Amino acid sequence: MSTMRFDVTTNDWVIFAPERARRPSAPRTEQPKANPPASECPFCPGNEHLTDPEIFALRQNNRENGPGWSVRVLPNKFPALRIEEHPDRQEEGSLYQWMGGCGAHEVIIETPEHDLQTPLQPVEQIEFVLRTLHFRFNDLMKDHRFQAVVLFKNHGEEAGASLRHPHWQLIATPVVPRMLRTKHMVAADYFDRRGRCLYCVLLEEELAMGKRVIAENQHFCAIVPYASKVPFEVWICPKFHQASFGWVEAGRLRFLAELLKSVLYRLYQALENPAFNLTLHSAPRGDEDKEYFLWHLEIAPRLNRPAGFELGSGMAINTVLPEEAARCLKGDEE
Amino acid sequence: MSTMRFDVTTNDWVIFAPERARRPSAPRTEQPKANPPASECPFCPGNEHLTDPEIFALRQNNRENGPGWSVRVLPNKFPALRIEEHPDRQEEGSLYQWMGGCGAHEVIIETPEHDLQTPLQPVEQIEFVLRTLHFRFNDLMKDHRFQAVVLFKNHGEEAGASLRHPHWQLIATPVVPRMLRTKHMVAADYFDRRGRCLYCVLLEEELAMGKRVIAENQHFCAIVPYASKVPFEVWICPKFHQASFGWVEAGRLRFLAELLKSVLYRLYQALENPAFNLTLHSAPRGDEDKEYFLWHLEIAPRLNRPAGFELGSGMAINTVLPEEAARCLKGDEE
Repeated sequence: MSTMRFDVTTNDWVIFAPERARRPSAPRTEQPKANPPASECPFCPGNEHLTDPEIFALRQNNRENGPGWSVRVLPNKFPALRIEEHPDRQEEGSLYQWMGGCGAHEVIIETPEHDLQTPLQPVEQIEFVLRTLHFRFNDLMKDHRFQAVVLFKNHGEEAGASLRHPHWQLIATPVVPRMLRTKHMVAADYFDRRGRCLYCVLLEEELAMGKRVIAENQHFCAIVPYASKVPFEVWICPKFHQASFGWVEAGRLRFLAELLKSVLYRLYQALENPAFNLTLHSAPRGDEDKEYFLWHLEIAPRLNRPAGFELGSGMAINTVLPEEAARCLKGDEE
Repeated sequence: MSTMRFDVTTNDWVIFAPERARRPSAPRTEQPKANPPASECPFCPGNEHLTDPEIFALRQNNRENGPGWSVRVLPNKFPALRIEEHPDRQEEGSLYQWMGGCGAHEVIIETPEHDLQTPLQPVEQIEFVLRTLHFRFNDLMKDHRFQAVVLFKNHGEEAGASLRHPHWQLIATPVVPRMLRTKHMVAADYFDRRGRCLYCVLLEEELAMGKRVIAENQHFCAIVPYASKVPFEVWICPKFHQASFGWVEAGRLRFLAELLKSVLYRLYQALENPAFNLTLHSAPRGDEDKEYFLWHLEIAPRLNRPAGFELGSGMAINTVLPEEAARCLKGDEE
């Protein structure tokens, strides 16, 4: 059973999920083993019996929980949050508050092929995955207990991936994550002063300057942000204003898939298949129609480990200038 | 030359220090090598010629930059910030701002003994180190360009330590780190509502409840915080109100050394010499006399890697309940 506790010194909620200590990448455990070969991989076709029943699948047959799928969605075996829990707040002493770990934690298997990393997948396959993410995002937001859906992908052990088979994850949270609220407050403040979306202005200027733009198509563009926290950080942003990923038109996901593949392939080439985290930033419940936030993808290669300074100050030290990273990534298209 | 850039989407400053790409733990470099043996260790006595001249040393002789010291302070060989740079803000386009990487980055060698990890050092030695940190903290704050001094220690490769020889580091920053400002705003808000220091109230309640207290002495106590972000996180806090570490009376550092040794030794025993980050949180310039903040040490063992969810939401997933961690650490005193 997981619970959440409020940190009165930072206003963050922290998730306590003791059962996750049993997952493959957790420290000091012997089993189940991390990165099993395809024959034992729970995400490979033929091994569907090793997982809980699927939540959703794109498949060419009706054999639910059998092979024949191209994208498959499962409950996470070691969930951080669960739909069975209740989000009622409980007080403890004069300061503290906790609540049930109410939410959802799903795994989205990107392909039946164990070793076909995202940048090497066909654009059509990536589009299928994005359509699935979009469907799961909107389906979970129908549950009014959930305030936000965090979509992310970990690639490589350094980035926290415990299974090699390509997959995304999503976690629906019963609170708005503080970091998301902070970004919204910063963007709302800009909107109140200037009357425009901060992100749209930022992209306009980046596209005009060009030196940090690495690729674009009709509907999306990819930039290395001016104040990147890590070397070779890349953002993929819509060129149209939209606060929530849930509102994106299905027809545009093909363009997003194209650009995502192109960016991941450039990183794969330039940095020799780096570990990375990929996260979707989108408006929380109630802010989907706001004029001041823009949903986007952030890709953060894991080349360095954050250490004491970063933990003690919240500030990042980056060793590669964004203009240099952009120059390097521009040259390497497939 | 390092520079800083303002992130308009989060209000954080990011440090750009391209020269740090050359340090031992940096990715894809061959030299200088990480964790050299004592004979080649730049922090070992007899190898003083391998480092820049010392900024300060506690020593029994007058042989500056020679052996005979017990604690030695050096400029970091790969500094994130430098005193030579200027903190003037420069604008770029309509949104962006940057400034010179003005600050200081020092290394504090804790002991002449290459392998004597902090929890195994005599209390006297730890007290010497704390006195040195205290002196450097106050000395750097005399430079009015610096807004905060971040003191930290990385132990173990997983925690970002590139040299095994026990050492602390400090970075003086020309801006108040956003995270520190946020903590201050949260604490000021509590003070404005309740008229008391949030941290002092929190400690009073923790000491009364007892279940998350792992050790204490006359002047300090160690707790596993209610909403710990990582398993076995420990805070060491003064039992008296004081916002800045710079203001602590020298006589109390002996008590802090005792408790720090005791806590690190318990972690060393319980978790078998874990990698950890140790950070000092203290009021920034101008807030040293405030009634609403309490300086303290935070110890974060590095047992898990933060991954996509943490990066995408800012929320932590902790697999060990604070009460269990406290129970485990209470039993293991030297």
